[in-house]
Parts: sequence; structure tokens; C-alpha cells
Amino acid sequence: MYKKKPFIFWFEFASTYSFISAMVIEEKAKQYNIPIQWQPFLLGPIFKQQGWSTSPFNIYTAKGNYMWHDMKRLCQKYEIDYQKPTNFPRNGLLAARISCLLEGKAKIDFIKKIFQLNFEQDKDISDIEILGKAIKEIGYISEDIIDKAQTSSVKEILKNNTDQAIELGIFGAPTFTIGNELFWGQDRLGDAFDYYQKIDESSLSK
Amino acid sequence: MYKKKPFIFWFEFASTYSFISAMVIEEKAKQYNIPIQWQPFLLGPIFKQQGWSTSPFNIYTAKGNYMWHDMKRLCQKYEIDYQKPTNFPRNGLLAARISCLLEGKAKIDFIKKIFQLNFEQDKDISDIEILGKAIKEIGYISEDIIDKAQTSSVKEILKNNTDQAIELGIFGAPTFTIGNELFWGQDRLGDAFDYYQKIDESSLSK
Repeated sequence: MYKKKPFIFWFEFASTYSFISAMVIEEKAKQYNIPIQWQPFLLGPIFKQQGWSTSPFNIYTAKGNYMWHDMKRLCQKYEIDYQKPTNFPRNGLLAARISCLLEGKAKIDFIKKIFQLNFEQDKDISDIEILGKAIKEIGYISEDIIDKAQTSSVKEILKNNTDQAIELGIFGAPTFTIGNELFWGQDRLGDAFDYYQKIDESSLSK
Repeated sequence: MYKKKPFIFWFEFASTYSFISAMVIEEKAKQYNIPIQWQPFLLGPIFKQQGWSTSPFNIYTAKGNYMWHDMKRLCQKYEIDYQKPTNFPRNGLLAARISCLLEGKAKIDFIKKIFQLNFEQDKDISDIEILGKAIKEIGYISEDIIDKAQTSSVKEILKNNTDQAIELGIFGAPTFTIGNELFWGQDRLGDAFDYYQKIDESSLSK
């Protein structure tokens, strides 16, 4: 039995371009009929390994200025509601842990909600009350998930995701992977889908 | 009289992704019927301002590994002959100065030739003999251009290009600009062309 390796969308809640991908990936995936595995991880430890204590967009001014202009421009292009967050990068640790506990539609609804809070509504996504309210608004996720997300087993899941990202050679977000094949950046989503579609199923299961 | 601002392709001879753009931009530009201004500049001074003494692809290993894999993949996609250079980044200073002196077809032929020497034939593009041979092979460029390129007035042109790039907020190559609008990265060429096509001519000449 041969089975294609999953198409994994690696995202980080603080990442601007991850927000764009989260908003557009479902519609694009439908066109290609490709199932997506949404995978939260943390950029913090990866950036720390590179000697950065914050986002490179804060460290390298020209790059940061470009990114904020580009965000406005891309959100217009994709018709995504957007406002520049007054605090960047926001701490998405707890939200990422919660998303590790969720599956299916609940997971996607929660992830998109958190991204929208950060990049549409300029809310502090590390605030436990804001997270609680978001879960209430989604409606069908049990509110005790916030407590569950703070147990060591869940912390371990997110840590493993981040370790796996580093092992795969991921250095930024969003990144799309199929097996060991990496596509970095929201603008490479189409290339990643094309790759997934073209690969021979048998060649992938080796 | 209203006139559209030029579509400028900012490139650096050491830059891998600039090579890809140089190989594909003419055909794409023809589809859009957009004239291209090929503009050499130097990344060295820009990287130095950011505290880097070499390419960030050499400093940040995961990013570098990804880039080399991506180069192979993109060159296959675009059917560009490519081999990984044994020395990176190569010093394109003299070649950039020469290209400042050229115009029209001679300029484009020379630029593409240098990129191919670096990224297809693994040649040292800072070597004056290799540059001389390249000019001879192109056939219709006077060989004394190498001497002319080393005069202070030509050095000044390239320095001005780099200063202008910094002023525009350019931080990497390739970058495409239309007025103050920047598009960074070979994967954003289509966006840049779309932008150029859509803009109202009168709005640009303000």
C-alpha cells in the first residue's frame, strides 16, 4: 500500500505571512483537492539559534518596513481584512498549545480566529481572557481546553513540533512541507501544491 | 504630459535569485509588453549595514541549505541550465561597473553572460581575463570597456545605484521597483508586472 506523505502547513501565530496563508490556504487547497495538515510550531527557539531575540523584521529595519507595506498590499490583493498590530511579534505560545489539542474543523476555526484576533483586531493573543472569549465565540469547543493546554503532555507536543521543524530545516513561517521537501513563504504555496500533485505516489512512500 | 515610471530590475551578480530573474524576465516582460530597466547595484554595502560580512545564506545555515535546494528546483522549473558555484558569493564589482557602461541589447547580453558564467559554468566573474573572454564572445562590445569601467566616473555610477537602492529601502536582490513601490524576490515578479499594468499613469507622475 502506497500513501502520499501529508501536505503540512507549518505556521506560527506571531507570523504575518502565516496569517495570510491561513486565510487563503483552504480555498486554494480545494481547487487542488489536497488535504492540509495544520501544524503549529514556535519560531522563537529557531530565531534564538540564529542569535535573534525578536523577529528579524524588528531587527532589520528595511526588511521590516517592506514587510509591513507588503502585508497591506497582499491583504488587499487577497481581500483579507487586516490592520497592523500595535505589538509585534505577539506571544502565541498558549494559543499554539491549544491548537495542538484540536482536530478537524475546530482546529481550523480556532487557528483562523487567533490569526484574525492578532492581525485584524489587534488583540493580545497571549491574554487568557481573550483566548477564552474566542473559544466561547467559536461555540463548540469546551472552555476547559485552556487548562488542558497547559499540561506537560501538551507542552511536549508543541515542543516536538518545533524540534521536528528544526530537523526538517525550517527557518521561517509559513513553510509548506511534503516529506522532506520544503517550500518557504506564502508566495510559494502554489509551487508546493504543484509539487504535491505531480509526485508519484510510490516514490514518496520509500 | 504623463509618463509611467520605469520598471526597474535591481540585480547583483553574486545573487542566486537575481540569476533566475535575469534568465526569465525578458520572456515574461514580453507577455506583459513592459520595458525593463536593468539596474546593477551592490549588496555588500547593504549587508554590511546589517552587520553581515558575507551573504546571509552563508551565515544562516538552514536558510542557505534551503536556498541551494530551491535554486536547483526553480532552475528545473524554468528550464535554466544551472550548477552550484564552488565559490559563493562571487565578487561582481567589476562586472557591475562594466554593465553600467552598456546599453540596450549589449547590456542585457553582457549581464546574462556574466550570470551564466557564475551560475551555469562556475567561473570566477571577478577575473579580468574571464571578463575579457566573455566580452570577446559576445562579439560586438569593445574590449577597452574593461579599462573604461575602472575610471572614477563609472565607479560613481555604481555607487549611486547602490545609494539609490538603500534610499528606496532595498535590502536584497532581486528587487523590482516602480517608483517607490518595491517587490522583493524572484517569486514576486508577476506581482510587480501586475502592479505596473494596473497603475493609472497620471497617478504615477505626481
